Parts: sequence; structure tokens; C-alpha cells
Amino acid sequence: MLRLDDLQNGYRIYQDPKLFCFGIDAVLLAHYPNLRDGDRILDLCSGFAPIPFMMLSDAKKRGFKVSIDALEIQSYVAETAQKSVEENGVGDCIKIINGDIKETERLFPAASFSLITCNPPYMPANSGIIGNSEAKAIARTEILCTLDDVCKSAARLLKPKGRFAMIHRPTRLPEILETLRKYRIEPKRIRFIHPYEQEEATMVLIESVRGGNAYMMVESPLIIYDQPQVYTDEVMKIYGRTQSKE
Amino acid sequence: MLRLDDLQNGYRIYQDPKLFCFGIDAVLLAHYPNLRDGDRILDLCSGFAPIPFMMLSDAKKRGFKVSIDALEIQSYVAETAQKSVEENGVGDCIKIINGDIKETERLFPAASFSLITCNPPYMPANSGIIGNSEAKAIARTEILCTLDDVCKSAARLLKPKGRFAMIHRPTRLPEILETLRKYRIEPKRIRFIHPYEQEEATMVLIESVRGGNAYMMVESPLIIYDQPQVYTDEVMKIYGRTQSKE
Repeated sequence: MLRLDDLQNGYRIYQDPKLFCFGIDAVLLAHYPNLRDGDRILDLCSGFAPIPFMMLSDAKKRGFKVSIDALEIQSYVAETAQKSVEENGVGDCIKIINGDIKETERLFPAASFSLITCNPPYMPANSGIIGNSEAKAIARTEILCTLDDVCKSAARLLKPKGRFAMIHRPTRLPEILETLRKYRIEPKRIRFIHPYEQEEATMVLIESVRGGNAYMMVESPLIIYDQPQVYTDEVMKIYGRTQSKE
Repeated sequence: MLRLDDLQNGYRIYQDPKLFCFGIDAVLLAHYPNLRDGDRILDLCSGFAPIPFMMLSDAKKRGFKVSIDALEIQSYVAETAQKSVEENGVGDCIKIINGDIKETERLFPAASFSLITCNPPYMPANSGIIGNSEAKAIARTEILCTLDDVCKSAARLLKPKGRFAMIHRPTRLPEILETLRKYRIEPKRIRFIHPYEQEEATMVLIESVRGGNAYMMVESPLIIYDQPQVYTDEVMKIYGRTQSKE
């Protein structure tokens, strides 16, 4: 059963709450890269494509022309995202592709994109934590798409010096940094996300550069809540960028 | 010219301000590991041995019996640390060894220690940033001791499941995590240190475990200042552990 959700940024997207809906991680990732005029963007593991719609809104507010391809493996999910593209009449800017990240060589020429984003499945396939539906399991665990698949594809598809922005779990950070470097995408900027200032990090944003030199900045921590149910000013501002009308 | 500095924890150590004096990084590192009764500790790149004296004070306050070896390559610096051991009458607990980290095979049997600490030179030897004295240069840049040397020695000298605590620069984090894992010391706990909450991290504390499994906790950020010259409560508390008399 589809639901049409208002992103409050000028766009509305279809989601199927029985499968999954986007969360704060998608919002934080969409606003992490510094967009540039003319960016050729690819969103991997795109789901119902919330990140492309948020980036497109940001780009338009700044008068930037960008193109965004969105790759999603599950055909029903990709079809739903395509409905959203039609609903919003943005077929000239956002292109939904139903395909497998392990087959991007057939789908895109090498070095096609200046920016790639990805909110991948967080859990290893053997972690035993499986959602109660197959579609959810595919979105959350590395059944069809591993960290290695993501980094390998990003490395091939990025132009030299192209940026790769990802959100993931800090518990896997050593493996994440190692895999990025294995494919010569150098982590350059990283930001940890803590529910409260006194708590451990639950998410991490990482921006890497294809062929960049080894020097990484650990940015100020991003704190989600001031108190239960109350977002910090910074998170309110990030959501505001989504919510303020054009 | 030697100066006798009161650590305000019951001990006084000699330092030569013309060479170098310990800073907040040594204080933070000394208090990062959770000491255990019976710990066999080795402090690498020990300098004037501030970290052994701070750990010994902590251990005694808790009624723990520990032994601490301190390895320092510069003979004048090691001799000075030895004077501090005599000054405080702690020759039964702290042993200063003048030697090269690249020759620890001759100095210690393998798997001798349950905890190793290290505040190593931060700068690559080719970084061009050299202090104005040779002794300072050796302490700050990887002239006689690289990150690889430190991790390799720690891996050999730690007992299985022994802990390795290090403080370093976040800008080198991908290389640090990779080097630790290369020697099968798994990063388990990491804490970033920011001068102010809104600023990027300038130091990072990392505790790794020899033969540990791959799962890392990113702890709450440690913020140094509330405002210029005013330490946060947490840093005051850490210094307090050093400063409170037994």
C-alpha cells in the first residue's frame, strides 16, 4: 500500500510503510556533501529515492543545475520511485534505474559521476539480524550488496577527484576506511553522529575523494537531541533545509 | 637544565624544558585505559616518563599492584627518567629502559605485557615540520620510530587479549586503524578530542585488543574547553585524578 509523503521541500514521494520508509540517516546524508553547479550525481542503494529528491531541492534553491541517477535493485521499489519522479515532473533531473550494484559496468560508463552518495545496508549478511520481510532484509543487511560492492562500484564510476559520501555504522569504521582505501577512494572528511553529547556515536558520515591524498578531517560531533524528543538546533536547521519551501 | 615538576599526585618528575615537557595528550592517555590489578604495563616512547608516574598513582589509589616498564630511545632522556624513579623511590614499580623500539625483541620476551601505552611521534618523517632541536625532532617526528614500528612492537609484546592504548592525530586515522589491524591488534574503543564542541578533532585516543574481534565503539566526544582558558568539567576531573593527593 503506497503512501504519498510530503518532503516539505516542494516534492512528495511515494513510500510503502510495509517495506520501509526513510529515516534521519537519509536526511543527514543528503545534506552532507557540498553540492556544486553541474554535479553529475549517482545515488546507490536508493530505495524510494528520498536522497535524490532532497539533493535536487537543495541544488535548485542555490540555482545549481545537477543531474541525479538513482540505482535501486528491488524492481517494485524502483517502480515506486519512478512514480514519484512522474508525480513531481522531474524526469529531466532524476533518472531511476532498476539494477544491481554488482553490474554497474553494464549500466554506466566508467568515471561518469562527480558525486556518488550511498546509504547502504548496515548489517553484515551473517549478523543474524534480519527484518520481518524480504524487502526490508535486502535494505538492511548485506544480502545483495556488501560494503565491498559499494566501494568498488563507487571507485569505478567516479571521475578522478570525484566525491563519495556515505553514512554507516561507527562500529564498522576500521573495515569501512580500509575498504575505501583498497579502492583508492581516500577518506577526507568524517563526522560522527551521537544521539546525545554524552553517548557513543550511532552513525557516521564519511566523504571520500577518488585519488585524494591521505589526510582526514574529523569534524565537530553532530548531536541529535538536546533532550528526549527535542532536536538540537543544528538538526533542526538540517531538517529546515528539507522543510523550507522554495 | 633539569626542572623538578610536581605532578600533584604524590610524585615529582624531572623534565628538561629545553628539550620538551609533557602536555595534555600525555595526561589524557595516562587516564584512558581501565587499569586492572596485576597489570604488567609497558609505556613506549616514554620520554621523561610522565605516563608511568600518572598510571602508578592511579593504580595505588585503587589498591592495585602493577609493574610498569618505560622504554625511551634517547639516553639523556632515559637517564633523567631514571633520576625521577630514584627521587620518588619507586624502583620496585617503574623500570626505565634505554632502548630502541625496533629492537624490542632483544629487550623483552614476546607476550610479556597485559597493557601497552604509547604517545608516539605524530608527524611523518617527511612532513618537513621539524623542531628546533634534535631531541625534540626525535620526540615529534617519525625519525627513529614510525607508526608501523609502534604497532609491530605492541603486537609482539602484548599477551593475547592484551590492550594497547595510543593517542595520535585524527588526520592520520585511516592509516592508524589499518596499521593496527595489519598486526592483528583490533581497535575496540576510540575517543575524539575537540578543543571546542564546534571544532574539528585535534587528537584521538584509541584502545585496541590483540586478537580482538572487529567491533569498535566510538565514545562520546571529549571537549577540552568551555571557553578560552577554561577547561570543561570532564577535563578538570581527569586532571583532578592526577592532582588529588593520595
